[in-house]
Amino acid sequence: MEPALSIDSTAMPDETPGLMPVFARLRHLREPLPARGQHASAANPPQSVRTSAREGRVFLVGAGPGEPDLLTLRAARLLASADVIVYDQLVDQGVLDLARPEARRVYVGKQAGHHSMPQDEINALLVSLASDGLQVVRLKGGDPFIFGRGGEEVEALFEAGIGFEIVPGITAASGMAAYAGIPLTHRDHAQSCVFVTGHLKDGSTNLDWTALARPRQTLVIYMGVGALEEICRELMAHGMPANLPAALVHRATLPEQRTVAGTLATLSRLALEHDVRAPALIVIGEVVSLHRRFDWFEKRSRVLSALAS
Amino acid sequence: MEPALSIDSTAMPDETPGLMPVFARLRHLREPLPARGQHASAANPPQSVRTSAREGRVFLVGAGPGEPDLLTLRAARLLASADVIVYDQLVDQGVLDLARPEARRVYVGKQAGHHSMPQDEINALLVSLASDGLQVVRLKGGDPFIFGRGGEEVEALFEAGIGFEIVPGITAASGMAAYAGIPLTHRDHAQSCVFVTGHLKDGSTNLDWTALARPRQTLVIYMGVGALEEICRELMAHGMPANLPAALVHRATLPEQRTVAGTLATLSRLALEHDVRAPALIVIGEVVSLHRRFDWFEKRSRVLSALAS
Repeated sequence: MEPALSIDSTAMPDETPGLMPVFARLRHLREPLPARGQHASAANPPQSVRTSAREGRVFLVGAGPGEPDLLTLRAARLLASADVIVYDQLVDQGVLDLARPEARRVYVGKQAGHHSMPQDEINALLVSLASDGLQVVRLKGGDPFIFGRGGEEVEALFEAGIGFEIVPGITAASGMAAYAGIPLTHRDHAQSCVFVTGHLKDGSTNLDWTALARPRQTLVIYMGVGALEEICRELMAHGMPANLPAALVHRATLPEQRTVAGTLATLSRLALEHDVRAPALIVIGEVVSLHRRFDWFEKRSRVLSALAS
Repeated sequence: MEPALSIDSTAMPDETPGLMPVFARLRHLREPLPARGQHASAANPPQSVRTSAREGRVFLVGAGPGEPDLLTLRAARLLASADVIVYDQLVDQGVLDLARPEARRVYVGKQAGHHSMPQDEINALLVSLASDGLQVVRLKGGDPFIFGRGGEEVEALFEAGIGFEIVPGITAASGMAAYAGIPLTHRDHAQSCVFVTGHLKDGSTNLDWTALARPRQTLVIYMGVGALEEICRELMAHGMPANLPAALVHRATLPEQRTVAGTLATLSRLALEHDVRAPALIVIGEVVSLHRRFDWFEKRSRVLSALAS
């Protein structure tokens, strides 16, 4: 249909495909990052009234679903220049590796057997670091404004008069959709998608089952593995068909990603049989039926494993 | 609270913050991209049975919400090495600029006064290009699996036996949330978010108003500006309070981003007064009330404009 491109067959294979040209072409470095150590202090007074770029600031950054290559260019640039990285348990080590080696790393997630740092302490920490004139990247798994409690942190920064920016990330549902081959919307199957958390402020799973059980939508439930049986049961009790396709995707986008697909009626049994644990997303809707054909990522992993063995 | 970092004040300001170190540190270049021009042909026969990396392939890539810096690292790498880029109208020129200058660019979006290329022709084009052994990046605005008709393209590739991969992108709703300062979920306001399109296959706006009008969720409506008045009216008729905060965000994440915020009762009038046109997202829910405080991006644009004038 279209003439083939003229190909330069003398081109050498290149295992680290040209990234410098990419960035050389980036005409969007609109706001150079503040240089490190250039914040105002008695020893280093502001050079002009337009010192805001040299003041401490917090960048609330989405770390994406796991695979470090799914970070945004903006997030990578900010990581590469930040003074401090404040992160929690859903941030992959490969993402942290993008930070300057000399950047300070502060972990505020759960420790084995212990809770995370309470949210108000995290808020106070961010305010304190930025008040010291530091460039702070607050890294949150996925997107900071989808189940990330980013709103609470921005509120604290606003109240304290700290400058902030928000950098979106690929939310877990999008990463899962692409890497498990499950479109979130599809003209034939779903005209909307709903993201909901199985884990509420008061510890209950008191979801709006009536709304969630409506047809022609794709439901993605974050942090719901522990309540999987209850979720499937309630959705069926509220009218969803027992044979509606449903899947559990463990560690989506990472090499250890694993999808277990069944129906509303079978999923919780399958999850037990295959020992699927958190972190995992639950996805429910007709689109799940496409996984078997669209599954490029796990299929490739299986082929590579077979070749290696 | 925490001791300040020791700062190297001799560090020089760096306007193009170190991106090579970032990529040098990327331990996740798991699968080197196929070298250009290395596909099998009579003149260039496959070197081994493991030639799949040299065959034509289609990468279905999310171009993100607009701002090129919000592209993923993976998308940037693929753009930098693809033979052909097939793209449509929601892809920003700044994103296309990341492609190799010699890459062929094929526009399949709407032309002034004309329709887009029909979906089945796009499908056939992708199959044809990959069958010629080319590395094809199919760039779609936002995320390919959220209102991108990506499922239909993958189906066609699967049926034709063409290898494919799917790379998620920041969906417009996430970009809007971050850049307009409107969290999509928030413990105090919304325990779920719903993405829906105002533009259906049959041309109607036949939405599931009952489900959409439920409380404690954030509603983001893609491609709904033309039906804004009807949408607000129907949501109120189905029980949403007239004073529920609602906003329209035009060209989210781009320098020309503009947010008009009001309520369900006032938004369509405000949209007319401020002449807000597509592309724009409609966002409805209590979280919209946070925009006034969280609006870092447009506020900065206004400050910069004021300083420049």
